[in-house]
Amino acid sequence: MRDEFELIATIRRRTARRSASVVLGVGDDAALVRPAPGFDVAASSDLLVEGVHFRRDWSTPELLGRKALAVSLSDMAAMGALPRAALVGLAVPRELDPAWIDAFYDGALAVADRYGVTIAGGDTSSSPGPIFVDAILLGEVEAGRALRRGGAAPGDDLWVSGALGTSHRGLRLLAAGVRLDSADGPEREAILAHLDPTPRVELGRALLERSLATSALDVSDGLSSDIGHLARESRMGIVVEAPRLPCAGSLDDALHGGEQYELLFTAPPLRAGEIERLSADMGLALTLVGRVEGEPGNVALEDENGGRVALAPRGWNHFAPEAPERP
Amino acid sequence: MRDEFELIATIRRRTARRSASVVLGVGDDAALVRPAPGFDVAASSDLLVEGVHFRRDWSTPELLGRKALAVSLSDMAAMGALPRAALVGLAVPRELDPAWIDAFYDGALAVADRYGVTIAGGDTSSSPGPIFVDAILLGEVEAGRALRRGGAAPGDDLWVSGALGTSHRGLRLLAAGVRLDSADGPEREAILAHLDPTPRVELGRALLERSLATSALDVSDGLSSDIGHLARESRMGIVVEAPRLPCAGSLDDALHGGEQYELLFTAPPLRAGEIERLSADMGLALTLVGRVEGEPGNVALEDENGGRVALAPRGWNHFAPEAPERP
Repeated sequence: MRDEFELIATIRRRTARRSASVVLGVGDDAALVRPAPGFDVAASSDLLVEGVHFRRDWSTPELLGRKALAVSLSDMAAMGALPRAALVGLAVPRELDPAWIDAFYDGALAVADRYGVTIAGGDTSSSPGPIFVDAILLGEVEAGRALRRGGAAPGDDLWVSGALGTSHRGLRLLAAGVRLDSADGPEREAILAHLDPTPRVELGRALLERSLATSALDVSDGLSSDIGHLARESRMGIVVEAPRLPCAGSLDDALHGGEQYELLFTAPPLRAGEIERLSADMGLALTLVGRVEGEPGNVALEDENGGRVALAPRGWNHFAPEAPERP
Repeated sequence: MRDEFELIATIRRRTARRSASVVLGVGDDAALVRPAPGFDVAASSDLLVEGVHFRRDWSTPELLGRKALAVSLSDMAAMGALPRAALVGLAVPRELDPAWIDAFYDGALAVADRYGVTIAGGDTSSSPGPIFVDAILLGEVEAGRALRRGGAAPGDDLWVSGALGTSHRGLRLLAAGVRLDSADGPEREAILAHLDPTPRVELGRALLERSLATSALDVSDGLSSDIGHLARESRMGIVVEAPRLPCAGSLDDALHGGEQYELLFTAPPLRAGEIERLSADMGLALTLVGRVEGEPGNVALEDENGGRVALAPRGWNHFAPEAPERP
């Protein structure tokens, strides 16, 4: 195995490309990022722990590197931020093949390049147990204009991007023994949705630039949990219309499956036409699935006859033994 | 055990205090930091892995929380940056007592408060094995003025803060079975130097504000390794005068012991008087230990008779089985 300094030297060579906003990258005590005047720096961190978030035999190191960046990019998308720099924390067993680490960075660098992100720092360590990844993203966003969870207003529409539940279906296929290299058609698509999600960075930027959204977040914990976050942060009630949900499979997967990385956002009804045009322009489904209505903090699921039940959060929770996502 | 959302709610309540530079803290998809006009954002990340960087039975959760912040603050110090915000990544076994996590945050928050830092985000997860901590620090530093590793010039003096080797002596005491609560006097001091290091944030700022240092880094890998980094990044040779080193114990501990978190910096000889006055003002030893001289990349250790030997890096290396720091 290479030693830590060789590993850092390799990472540094591979991440040497810079953007104007990254003044100093890998190789010093800290990275330096220079936001444009009038921009805030958005910063997020996402852990991927082997045995909790991923299994080595269910994925490949390239796909894991891609996903590490993607999940943190999804946080930038949810803020409407322009992603700029990433720091990668990586702890691996000493006996791990160095080719694994190279392939992990192949994946991470490919996604970083795709979104104009420079891998600018991080830390490396050995691990006496599982592989541990922390992907940290720094972006910039116009000061005072970031898309927050707390901005939903009474009467706003609730929108969601893409289709819901595909990633969770992929996870169930993996748990049932289906593997990426033996799957094809919709099964392969579902597994890829789980192993190689697409962050909605361009959508987040468009929502902010056109001032379309009053609030936004990404569907990482599961729709039922994430709508709960939105209702609490905005101190609003939310009604979700079940028949409108863009389910890729079962309603249950759509409501409670985690790691979907679609954007959930609210917007005034007057802007619905513009949102539909944006959807057409981007070639990405944007679906009106509910509205801001009811007692603060309450989330209701409405059926086709207008009957309502409370929608309790049942999404991803790393400490709950029944967490549906736990492999 | 509390579930993840309760844990995040607890962390959020405890980190609610904000500074002017932290626009948005825990509870959204990303934190928002607003650097002052003309300032860059410095960003660093430091992993602490159970069994590699710490042992639960050698420390306390408070001290671990303190150290997590301190080691990342030390990176800010080495850049001359003003620390502003921290993100904390924490993966713990499901069965861990919630009081452990509270105590960890007691420690992290105490050090954050001490340095004017807001804990503004991060991520939490369960871990199927060891505890993993990733402490991410964001600071601000005058654009173009950060203290880098690559700025040493021919003829510069080499300086180091504090005393060297204490932390490593503390680690050896711990490895020999001495524990904090049974130690006193110099043994307790050495163990505390290892478990509760002091980042030299004020020194880093003073060096930058007074334009005293041409380069700087912190002694985290061990002096022999870190001087090597400085020589390589600056493309300079460095001569270290062994008799001048401020050794707390053996020369070997001072040269190769890791996790010292003192600052190593270079400065023109003309500024030596000012550096000595700064040392007196701060009540912190600053010792001239060598000079920038010799073939680029070469590091030599000079004895009291002027005899020289090459100083090879033997400091902390997470992938080398002989790493002296590994418990």
